[in-house]
Amino acid sequence: MSELKFKGYAIEDTSKWDQFKLIDFEPKPFGDTDVEIKIEYCGVCGSDVHTITGGWGQPNLPLVVGHEIAGIATRVGSKVTTVKPGDRVGVGAQVCSCGQCHLCKHSNEQYCPKRVFTYNAKYESGLVTQGGYSTAIRCDERFVFPIPENLKLEEAAPLFCGGLTVFSPLIRNGTGPGKKVGIVGIGGLGHLAIQFAKALGADEVVVFSHSKRKEEDALRLGGTKFIVPEKGFEKDLHASLDLILCTANVADGIPLNEYISTLAPGGRFVMVALPESELPSLGATTLVTGTYYGGSLLGSKEEALQMLKLASEKGIKPWIEVLPMKEAGQAVRNVKEGKGRYRYVLK
Amino acid sequence: MSELKFKGYAIEDTSKWDQFKLIDFEPKPFGDTDVEIKIEYCGVCGSDVHTITGGWGQPNLPLVVGHEIAGIATRVGSKVTTVKPGDRVGVGAQVCSCGQCHLCKHSNEQYCPKRVFTYNAKYESGLVTQGGYSTAIRCDERFVFPIPENLKLEEAAPLFCGGLTVFSPLIRNGTGPGKKVGIVGIGGLGHLAIQFAKALGADEVVVFSHSKRKEEDALRLGGTKFIVPEKGFEKDLHASLDLILCTANVADGIPLNEYISTLAPGGRFVMVALPESELPSLGATTLVTGTYYGGSLLGSKEEALQMLKLASEKGIKPWIEVLPMKEAGQAVRNVKEGKGRYRYVLK
Repeated sequence: MSELKFKGYAIEDTSKWDQFKLIDFEPKPFGDTDVEIKIEYCGVCGSDVHTITGGWGQPNLPLVVGHEIAGIATRVGSKVTTVKPGDRVGVGAQVCSCGQCHLCKHSNEQYCPKRVFTYNAKYESGLVTQGGYSTAIRCDERFVFPIPENLKLEEAAPLFCGGLTVFSPLIRNGTGPGKKVGIVGIGGLGHLAIQFAKALGADEVVVFSHSKRKEEDALRLGGTKFIVPEKGFEKDLHASLDLILCTANVADGIPLNEYISTLAPGGRFVMVALPESELPSLGATTLVTGTYYGGSLLGSKEEALQMLKLASEKGIKPWIEVLPMKEAGQAVRNVKEGKGRYRYVLK
Repeated sequence: MSELKFKGYAIEDTSKWDQFKLIDFEPKPFGDTDVEIKIEYCGVCGSDVHTITGGWGQPNLPLVVGHEIAGIATRVGSKVTTVKPGDRVGVGAQVCSCGQCHLCKHSNEQYCPKRVFTYNAKYESGLVTQGGYSTAIRCDERFVFPIPENLKLEEAAPLFCGGLTVFSPLIRNGTGPGKKVGIVGIGGLGHLAIQFAKALGADEVVVFSHSKRKEEDALRLGGTKFIVPEKGFEKDLHASLDLILCTANVADGIPLNEYISTLAPGGRFVMVALPESELPSLGATTLVTGTYYGGSLLGSKEEALQMLKLASEKGIKPWIEVLPMKEAGQAVRNVKEGKGRYRYVLK
């Protein structure tokens, strides 16, 4: 059966990772539970850069990246119950999972061994997934999120990966009244994490950043304290935080042992940025304080719906700069150089 | 004021770590809240060996180790309310903490920055603490545990360090009905961890050991499954365990990434054996399964009392071999070689 092709901005060579070329690509066959979405906006995520530069390994080329997608549903399969044509919807970094395993059945579908990511992954058929720097996407309704009325499409887009990635570990680790949370790094993820931690009611939201000039932003976003992690910074915070969400790359020489020393017994240091290399080793006694070092990946649909509700109620939105999609090259260069304040969204 | 000296078996040189010599040593000055205990039994802990061999750094010499102490209270200070002379009591690996900080006030006194360990530590006065391979010990009643009637002194002794060290992370991580727990290693700590995990009601207690010949013991102790961690062992257990308590040394080349892959999202791998070197580094994606890698040290008094109650009610006891204290050298050699089945207790 011949199908219309979709169009997208693709990378053809990781050594030319900022040179996008418009290509045609084949979407997955349209299924009974699928939704087809006309893409209006797509956020630019750090993962896009790790992927197109080959930092996470050689990608399937040519590749269209982008997994912070917002648009309008244009077609729904006969068994779709949660979306109808014309709905404003989003898609994040995942487009499929088995739906049958204990992980899928307990709102952990992002950890399903058969999960399929939005780009540079393969469906069981072997078809490589292509992302949102494109005209349209098609995927199972389980991975399509309705966008609340009062959120603009372009402001909703970054929530589907960046927002969910920080929201899930915040709520899984009990962020709320009585808790003290630290956020390491203020960027695409960090600036959302600060807002969500505050909105969830944490008593303290301590923001760590090497950029002193981001202090004003940190406090405007909801931080209660701003700390430049210079030598000895950890002493005043010893054993006091319940959770640290680290949006910086732990392999970049951040003071990991010192950060962990600021955690109270039972406290957790959670990485949400996946480094390109092995994790740095910890001192022998670093975790003997009853603390934990962990990671997190995306979030479940249940959590995405909860996040959207909170964002809608509390007016949480990413700080974005919108660029035309043909300027994707400029956007990924800026993300690689840490220039965004704080998220680029391609139109 | 001249005080009676206590006598103990001390190490004078880390290169002669199995050659104990009977010495006199000075106890701390007797305070209003102190209890003096005539030591009847002292367990032999892996920490004793790490310390006397210099593995954790050069100790204060001469040094009397031993922190699994059971005996009879012989004298109590004027302000002591929980112990009276003649009581059967125990002391574990800690003899003091500040009592004032937020950690002390919330049953985390084992993590108090001013904590004092039972041996090879210093009181604020500068006095070096000496452990339980000795005639007597004196310490604050906050670190003295009453021994339930139906526990023998020699069987209670190993609970005060070994028992508490595994009990605290088991309960802090929710071990109970509906939970699946893994125990890595069957030794002094592991054989108690299996019993406590079972007694707390865990659905599954999966025991991992390289010694196939320990399978029968593992099942007798309460294990529901026994696994030799050979290549590929982790596949059948993928994302299924809620907690792994690791009593083996993580720096000894255990398959750490594979163990962590058996944890469900939110699951935790907890080290209770402190290695002598940096922790091995983890693969970049190991923790991106929503899992945590952490440590734990001893336990609080509140937890010790809860542990003793459970041990008393469920008949939990260490499997011990009692040796005369003058044979301490043989005992520590055997512990270093992993020969105990499963705890030596010196009389």
